[in-house]
Amino acid sequence: MELQRSARGARGASGGTGDVVAKIEARLLKGFRDYLPSEEGPRLRMLDAVRRVFESFGFGPLQTPAIEYADILLGKYGDEGDKLLYRFLDNGERDVALRYDLTVPLARVVAQYGGELVLPFRRYHVAPVWRAEKPGKGRFREFMQCDVDIVGEPSARADAEIMTVGLEVLAALGVQAFVMRVNDRRILDGALDLVGVSARTARTAVLRAIDKLPKIGRSEVEKEIRVAVPLEAAAMDRLFALLGREVKGIAELEALRAELAGSEVGIAGVDGLRALLTMVAAAGYGERVAVDLSIARGLDYYTSTIYETFLVGHEAFGSVMSGGRYDGLLDAFSGKVTPAVGISLGVDRLLAALTEAGLVTARKSAGDVFLCVMDSERHADAMRIARAMRTAGLRVEVSLAGQKVGKQFQLATRKGYRFAALIGADEIAAGTVAVKDLESGQQEVLALAAVAEWGPRFAT
Amino acid sequence: MELQRSARGARGASGGTGDVVAKIEARLLKGFRDYLPSEEGPRLRMLDAVRRVFESFGFGPLQTPAIEYADILLGKYGDEGDKLLYRFLDNGERDVALRYDLTVPLARVVAQYGGELVLPFRRYHVAPVWRAEKPGKGRFREFMQCDVDIVGEPSARADAEIMTVGLEVLAALGVQAFVMRVNDRRILDGALDLVGVSARTARTAVLRAIDKLPKIGRSEVEKEIRVAVPLEAAAMDRLFALLGREVKGIAELEALRAELAGSEVGIAGVDGLRALLTMVAAAGYGERVAVDLSIARGLDYYTSTIYETFLVGHEAFGSVMSGGRYDGLLDAFSGKVTPAVGISLGVDRLLAALTEAGLVTARKSAGDVFLCVMDSERHADAMRIARAMRTAGLRVEVSLAGQKVGKQFQLATRKGYRFAALIGADEIAAGTVAVKDLESGQQEVLALAAVAEWGPRFAT
Repeated sequence: MELQRSARGARGASGGTGDVVAKIEARLLKGFRDYLPSEEGPRLRMLDAVRRVFESFGFGPLQTPAIEYADILLGKYGDEGDKLLYRFLDNGERDVALRYDLTVPLARVVAQYGGELVLPFRRYHVAPVWRAEKPGKGRFREFMQCDVDIVGEPSARADAEIMTVGLEVLAALGVQAFVMRVNDRRILDGALDLVGVSARTARTAVLRAIDKLPKIGRSEVEKEIRVAVPLEAAAMDRLFALLGREVKGIAELEALRAELAGSEVGIAGVDGLRALLTMVAAAGYGERVAVDLSIARGLDYYTSTIYETFLVGHEAFGSVMSGGRYDGLLDAFSGKVTPAVGISLGVDRLLAALTEAGLVTARKSAGDVFLCVMDSERHADAMRIARAMRTAGLRVEVSLAGQKVGKQFQLATRKGYRFAALIGADEIAAGTVAVKDLESGQQEVLALAAVAEWGPRFAT
Repeated sequence: MELQRSARGARGASGGTGDVVAKIEARLLKGFRDYLPSEEGPRLRMLDAVRRVFESFGFGPLQTPAIEYADILLGKYGDEGDKLLYRFLDNGERDVALRYDLTVPLARVVAQYGGELVLPFRRYHVAPVWRAEKPGKGRFREFMQCDVDIVGEPSARADAEIMTVGLEVLAALGVQAFVMRVNDRRILDGALDLVGVSARTARTAVLRAIDKLPKIGRSEVEKEIRVAVPLEAAAMDRLFALLGREVKGIAELEALRAELAGSEVGIAGVDGLRALLTMVAAAGYGERVAVDLSIARGLDYYTSTIYETFLVGHEAFGSVMSGGRYDGLLDAFSGKVTPAVGISLGVDRLLAALTEAGLVTARKSAGDVFLCVMDSERHADAMRIARAMRTAGLRVEVSLAGQKVGKQFQLATRKGYRFAALIGADEIAAGTVAVKDLESGQQEVLALAAVAEWGPRFAT
């Protein structure tokens, strides 16, 4: 065990002796990433804004453990998903896994605390999930999810509520150009009825292939479909013609309904979508929503409505917010049908897209003002003055290094501060602070009480 | 593999067929817990307040992955710590582990991004950590840590800054009665010099025994010490007399310095503590701080200052905020001495203590107002009106169930709402909302624009 030996060597060193140390290389696992403060700051502000919107709709926060019994998670995401689980035996030889999403933990919670939760139960959940996927551009093995779900309400009113909260989240983040694409899996089922694909495993395989359409294109999807089911060329054409139909309004939905006339489930899908879109449009959210019959979603558990959301001009990032209705998932735990619908915001993907679009900028300094101290013997006074400035609403970093003032100003700039303040014996005696705009060089002496008002207003 | 078979059965059911399903029991692993919205709400508000204080001192947020290469973590927490790691082989056969604290990931980050980080580097980190400890009252295998650290500044100014930010966090949370106990490990080293314990392994073992003093009492600690080193009764008495010395001010520190005269490291510890306490007192934080020569901290990596913080009257919860200086830890990765000091808030422990003290109360409803709808055919109008109310600053949950109004009011009460609003065709036509205080029964019809101002003010 070479690894353990190096680690022990290192511990020796940290004990403070002069041992020769086997250094441990500071490195990350592939597919994982750190967020330094300049990146994590904007990310947290985004998460705060998302939470505020969730709460404004009456969703309450839920938190569950990262580790679950493996059987809670297995079999919910399809065979491919099962393979991507971080699954291991814990120190007590229990078969456990890291959560793969936030939906299955919700299903477990609803089954486990059924009596305590008042239905319809609205919850949001912001937490990382883990998937051992092949890492790639924008695809990580640990990523943050922001889920919002309603459990216990079967009507389209719940679907509309979920769509609405999603649309309001993007609006709150300042995203101007986006569209939420909506479909109903039952319409896809209807299409598969039309072309004679009836076996459940074949249908699942075809749906999963269709889900890859934007990524791999029609000819690859056709190949993947043919592995699952021997579909003739005419049937394949009919399927893709249906997936590609433009649905702008009620007239196109009527036409679709006529085409799916032979499929009971297909008709139910069209009617469901119609009711949903009518409601969303009447509530004033119509312009952000479009029907897209080709979206299928990769996860097994969706049963009717499905959503994907794309930033116009940044479609390559994929869907930044996806979800749907999964009326069957909770059965696995509770044994009774409990309807549920939800949507999940891909925070990191959205942040990457917004950064590319210039809607999010990194901020280097964590505070508003860097407080320099002329004489480090007076550091306690600086602490007192910083405290007063904080009470006035400023975020103040006190210089700690005990350097000359010029060096401290340089440090402030290197740390990304635009504003510095300076105190020496005179200022301490007089109850004033010298303040300086490090960009313009503008400088003045202010009474401590006036510092918070010192304009130009401090950047946030 | 019985577990997998049940899971597959369940997935079949979620596909909507009538299969007989092997139910999966909804359950949690021992030592883990869920936070339902009524508990997670206050917890998040606490974390928000903590973050605000951290940022007011210019600390920026850091985020690192839950999973690290095992050798990054091994050997940093002592042999007992190593055994408590959640360590496993990932899907690529890599030796990995879940993080055990937030300090070692910080050390890795500093070594890895050295050039990008401007020293002194101030960061905070709020995230769960995992330890496979024996679960007990208030002791969980997954728990949230809130760490704040300064890397790269060796002076007592950094120690004072860390103490101050910790004290301000507790003040911001409304905690009135608490005391931060401070010690310097070098004083403990000096005491061990006095009683002739010089071998490093023996010293580590004695420190770890002393750390358990409040939990297991002197006689058990003595037993544990004797396992490590054959200390005579007189030496043992001298050691405990020193640990128990009351240090109220400079005079007692002088006396301690005289007693430790034979130990260079002991004197350095006394001088360090004196400089630190003088600064903290001059900055106005003296009354919250007390020297306690018996605190030792369990973790291996501390080198001088150590802190523990207790709520007066709730000492049984243990220290709610602990930390210290660990000038050697970063060597393990970077190979150069990089001074560092930090403190960690035990959020869940603090929340439990504050709940017991009545300082935190659960809030059942996630929103401010439950909006009832007379006629579910007018649901889109309710969505519109809810949107207007949200724009006015209210958190509004729209009733989804399509029940009669009386049932909806009952539901609002069961969901913990104090305030309900109601719209029917008349209100929609008139642009008004009927509002009701569900506690007092008080009811009136208001113009939509006036709803946000409806008194009594909405509870938050």
